[in-house]
Parts: sequence; structure tokens; C-alpha cells
Amino acid sequence: MYKARAYACVSPTAVLAGTTIPRRDVTDRDVQIEILFCGVCHSDLHTARDEWHSVMQTVYPCVPGHEIIGRVTQVGAGVTRFKVGDVVGVGCLVGSDHTCSNCKNGLEQFCPSATFTYNSPDKHGTAPVTYGGYSDSVVVEEDMVLRIPTNLELSGAAPLLCAGITTYSPLKRQGVGPGKKVGVVGLGGLGHMGVKLAHAMGAHVTVFTTSPGKREDALKLGADEVVVSKNAGEMKKHASTFDMILDCVSADHDINAYLSLVRTGGNLTLVGAPEKPLPVSAFALFFGNKTLGGSMIGGIAQTQEMLDFCGQHGITSDVEVIPIQKVNEAYERMLKSDVKYRFVIDMATLKA
Amino acid sequence: MYKARAYACVSPTAVLAGTTIPRRDVTDRDVQIEILFCGVCHSDLHTARDEWHSVMQTVYPCVPGHEIIGRVTQVGAGVTRFKVGDVVGVGCLVGSDHTCSNCKNGLEQFCPSATFTYNSPDKHGTAPVTYGGYSDSVVVEEDMVLRIPTNLELSGAAPLLCAGITTYSPLKRQGVGPGKKVGVVGLGGLGHMGVKLAHAMGAHVTVFTTSPGKREDALKLGADEVVVSKNAGEMKKHASTFDMILDCVSADHDINAYLSLVRTGGNLTLVGAPEKPLPVSAFALFFGNKTLGGSMIGGIAQTQEMLDFCGQHGITSDVEVIPIQKVNEAYERMLKSDVKYRFVIDMATLKA
Repeated sequence: MYKARAYACVSPTAVLAGTTIPRRDVTDRDVQIEILFCGVCHSDLHTARDEWHSVMQTVYPCVPGHEIIGRVTQVGAGVTRFKVGDVVGVGCLVGSDHTCSNCKNGLEQFCPSATFTYNSPDKHGTAPVTYGGYSDSVVVEEDMVLRIPTNLELSGAAPLLCAGITTYSPLKRQGVGPGKKVGVVGLGGLGHMGVKLAHAMGAHVTVFTTSPGKREDALKLGADEVVVSKNAGEMKKHASTFDMILDCVSADHDINAYLSLVRTGGNLTLVGAPEKPLPVSAFALFFGNKTLGGSMIGGIAQTQEMLDFCGQHGITSDVEVIPIQKVNEAYERMLKSDVKYRFVIDMATLKA
Repeated sequence: MYKARAYACVSPTAVLAGTTIPRRDVTDRDVQIEILFCGVCHSDLHTARDEWHSVMQTVYPCVPGHEIIGRVTQVGAGVTRFKVGDVVGVGCLVGSDHTCSNCKNGLEQFCPSATFTYNSPDKHGTAPVTYGGYSDSVVVEEDMVLRIPTNLELSGAAPLLCAGITTYSPLKRQGVGPGKKVGVVGLGGLGHMGVKLAHAMGAHVTVFTTSPGKREDALKLGADEVVVSKNAGEMKKHASTFDMILDCVSADHDINAYLSLVRTGGNLTLVGAPEKPLPVSAFALFFGNKTLGGSMIGGIAQTQEMLDFCGQHGITSDVEVIPIQKVNEAYERMLKSDVKYRFVIDMATLKA
């Protein structure tokens, strides 16, 4: 075991502050990574503040962060795919049983023994729970480590590890590509990745936003058109035309209004995480045999596929790089949607 | 035009009573049918009482009935597929434009110009709206008329035209067959057909019911097991195991409890029509990339496929045949779920 520097909070109401945490020594199958950048995801904030306690209680101290980019500093004797100096990524998952049907189907995130990057029981016993990427170092089993295409700018690549795969996976599942009309609801961390990815897949992309001021930005990100969702007339023009709508909004909103824009046999997938149950009209699903789906990140193979796709298309997240000392401020700004479109922590500042 | 006998109601609060209605004379493309049996569907009651006015207002007089079995009494000069004496069926649809993308995809029920069997603007101008099967005769264009396999008992075949296709279509869409585990929620008109069809498709079928008294019946209908949904322990045993759940309940119920029983990538399809929006937890969809769908009847080709499937497997609905004079009483009994499992009107009694 060794000590790593980290930022942690000790209760739901405490701010994040500098500390040290234990990390395990590298085993045969492990990769030790010096963390260069870590994205700031809404899940970090929800977990730090124990806002998802009904689903998963937060154990303190809590070290968030699952959009990790770093450089390999040590590998175990059995590691074959990585060597010291490689640029790698770690997303939301650091372990799974590799044997269950979900793992066999490349859906490690649904493995009953999945170990998430933070706040998940630590099977290695280094600490009560896993500690995330707000740290200068992490040790992860080789199978859960991802290659980062060399052409990608590293701070912008960090959010691909969660926001990227969260939006890529449902787009792929719904067969998004040329000739498909895709809607993206909400232009935040998830939404702006959804726009870039759906555009790169060749789809016609429409952004729905409550803020007319986001029109220019949406077009720059790759949207073909922008609909101000408060404008009922504009909404109605798109009735029953979308093959798929990717709903990235976690605030309360009228899901049935968006279902009415989905074509016969089409799908709306939720990736935002509204706290309260959504009132869904059965009739909104009946008329057109529509489906409402949910999607949670993606498996390891698909995350690598997404990273490679982003490498081919030169896609990264639009980020604001911050020193770790500003992470608490970043949380407050994130709550006001005051970020374009993802905060990423420059982990070199942890040494400051 | 000629006069047909029928049962109609003249207001949302009026009972159904005997009357006469206009039917068009047979055109080149039409088939005239002497109605032998007509099933009593929940939609009949909802429409007669204008309970769906937010979606579709009822025009009075209203003649319900869209589970029609009859015998051809006359055919137009251009009719090629039917001859006098053939036993035929008519379901929920009597017209569509045959040219839109939905029609081309065999989904005439979603054609923007679809004409439903009752309470739909009558394009032939015989009456303000179409009149359904609570009548001794109907004239329908050949393309919307279905062949009834000769081995099926006719009163039991009537409910196939709505309850049958409503449950068959989503089961087929979800790939139900051998090796699949299917749940059916609610053992009424729709549910009992869902059980028979899913069983005949080769799936393992579990019935969810609030009434332990329905266990024996469910097993007789073809269920492999029965879960009393009020029993949380019994429910939990089935967590994340169903490929598909067919939800046939229109009363308020906890949809998230059923979503938790769906396996990774699985689906729950609503065919019951709850009046109020259903509170759906986004997390119930996230964990397992699940989908919640709705399904509305089925197109003409698939309805014929379903009838042929029922012919091959000897499947009909379990029915209680009533004289038309008892239809108002049947509505009241239906509201109390006091029917196993579908009322079917013997239309010969209309002449009494």
C-alpha cells in the first residue's frame, strides 16, 4: 500500500479538501496510473452530497471522479496490453467478475459484482470503498483500463470516459447513422457530447433547448437545427419525425411532449437522471408503438470503441480546465449550468 | 344505402339500445358481411361513455364493436379474395390510405388517414362516423377484411380481432419464443390471450396477478408459473429475469416494481390503457438499459398472421356468449372484472 494525494469530502455537507488516501501496490494484473486530468461529472456531486442514497449510500471519506486520463507509471508482471508511459483512461468501472452473462455480453456495468470507480466496496480491501480520480494516482486492473487515441487533446478526452460513453452507447443501440433524425434534449455535459457523436455518426441532429441563446453554440457543436422547446408551434412541426431522441435533462420536464415527436417504432432514451419519477402517458407510447428507454454508461469494449471513434473523428469534449482548488466552486457553477460544457481538473495542481 | 339493425347509445350516460343505422351499398372493392359474433372490448365501453374524450371525442349515436366475425353476403365486382359464404373477421380498422410509410410498413393503425371501425370520420359519407359491430351487418373494403381459419370456433375467435392482435404484436416484436421468459401482468381479456399466445410461441410464461384465486386458471391457460404480485418476496425472486413483460393492466399499479423484474436489455410493454400518467423511475430504466414500450393493436398483415397462428395452434379466447340485450349488464360486470375472459355477443339475438 502507498499513500496518494486526493481531494475528498467527509460528509454530505462538507466541501472537498486535500487529503491522502491509501492505494494498493500493483499486483500482477494491475496498472498504476499517474492521473493527469479528471472530469467533473454530475454523478460526482450527487455522490459527494449523498443525493442518491435511496439507490446507493455514500461512504465517507468520498473521493469522486470517474473521467480519468493519465500516464502509466508501473505495470504488474502479468500485464500485456500496457507499458510505462502509455496514455490511458479509466471510466466509471474498475472491476467486474468477467464471467456473468452481462460481462459476457460486454455489459460489465450491470455485472452483479461490478466495482465502480468510487464509492463501491473495494474488493482489494485497501479501503472500505473505492476512491476515484480526484487524486494524483490510481491502481486499476488491466482489463478495465482504456487506450486513449494519440491525436486527442488530453483534458478534452477526459469527459469521454463518462459523458462520451453515456451518450455513445444509446445512439449506437438505436442504430443512429446516416438518414436518421436524432433529437438531443438539453445542451450540457451529456447533451453536447450527444450532438457531436450523433453528428459524427452521420445523423441529422436537432437540439432541443429552453434557452434561445444556445442556438449558435448548438450549431457550432454540429447540430443541423435547434428547437426552442418552450415554443409549442416549433415543437409541433416535428411531430412523429424523430427516429430517436436522447434526453439528457435531469431537471423536471414533460417527457410526453418529446414522445409525441418520436416516429412510429421510434425511441426516446433517458440518460439524464431526474430524481422524481417521470409521469409517462401510456397513450404517448401506444400511438406509434414507441419505446422509452434508459441507458447507463457502457461496457469496456464499447467504451474503447467510442474512444477509437472519437480518435477517428477528432472528437473531444468542450472543457473548462480548473485547478483542483476550484472544484467546490465548480460544483456550485455546475448547479447553475454555468459551464461550457464540462469542468476538467488539471491534476498537476494537486501537487501545488 | 340500406338500414342495418344495431345497438347504439345516444350520450355518455345512456344505455345501449336497439336502433337502425345506415350502411353503404357495396362498392366495387367492398365486402358485405352478416355479423355473427362481436366481442365486447374495454374500448367499446370507454368510447360509448366518452371516457377517452381527451384523445378522441365520441360522436353520438355510437355503435361500438371491433371484434367482428361474420359471413360474406355480397362482394363488389372488383373483390378478388372473398366470395359469398366465406367466414371473415373485421378488427379495429376499416380503412387507411395504403400509401403512407406506416401503411407500407404494415402499420395501418398509425396511418394518418386510418379509419377505425367505430367513431372514426366516415370517408364514404354514409354517416358522420363509422358504426361498429354491434349490428347485424357491415360493409368493409376488401383490404381490411380478414380470413378466419376454418378450425376455430367462431364466438371464441371474435376477440382475436382486438385482444388477440393487441397481445400478439408486442410479443412478436420482442422476439418471444423458446428460451424466453415472459411475464403477463393481469389476467383479463388481454392477459388471458397474452398467456395463450406466449405459451404457443414456446416461451416460459409467468402470470402476475393480485388474486391468488386466479392461480389455477392461469396454469390452465398455459402459464408455467403464477406470482401473486402483492407478495414482495415472491416478486423479488424474479428480479432481473424477464426478457419481456406484457402489462395488460389499466388500473393504477407500480410499473417500477415490474421494471425491476426485467433483465438487462429487456422490455416491458404496456397494452392496458391506464388513464393517469404512470410514474416511471428513470433509475428503473437505467439499471439494465431497459425499455418501456406501448403497443396499439397491429396492422392488417400481422392480424392475418396472428389469426393463422391461432388456427395452427387451435387458439381462441375463453368467452361468455351473451344476447345483445345483456350488453349493458355485461359492461357493468366487465368493470368488476366479472368475466372469464371476454363477453361475445351472439348477433343472432339482435333479430329477436
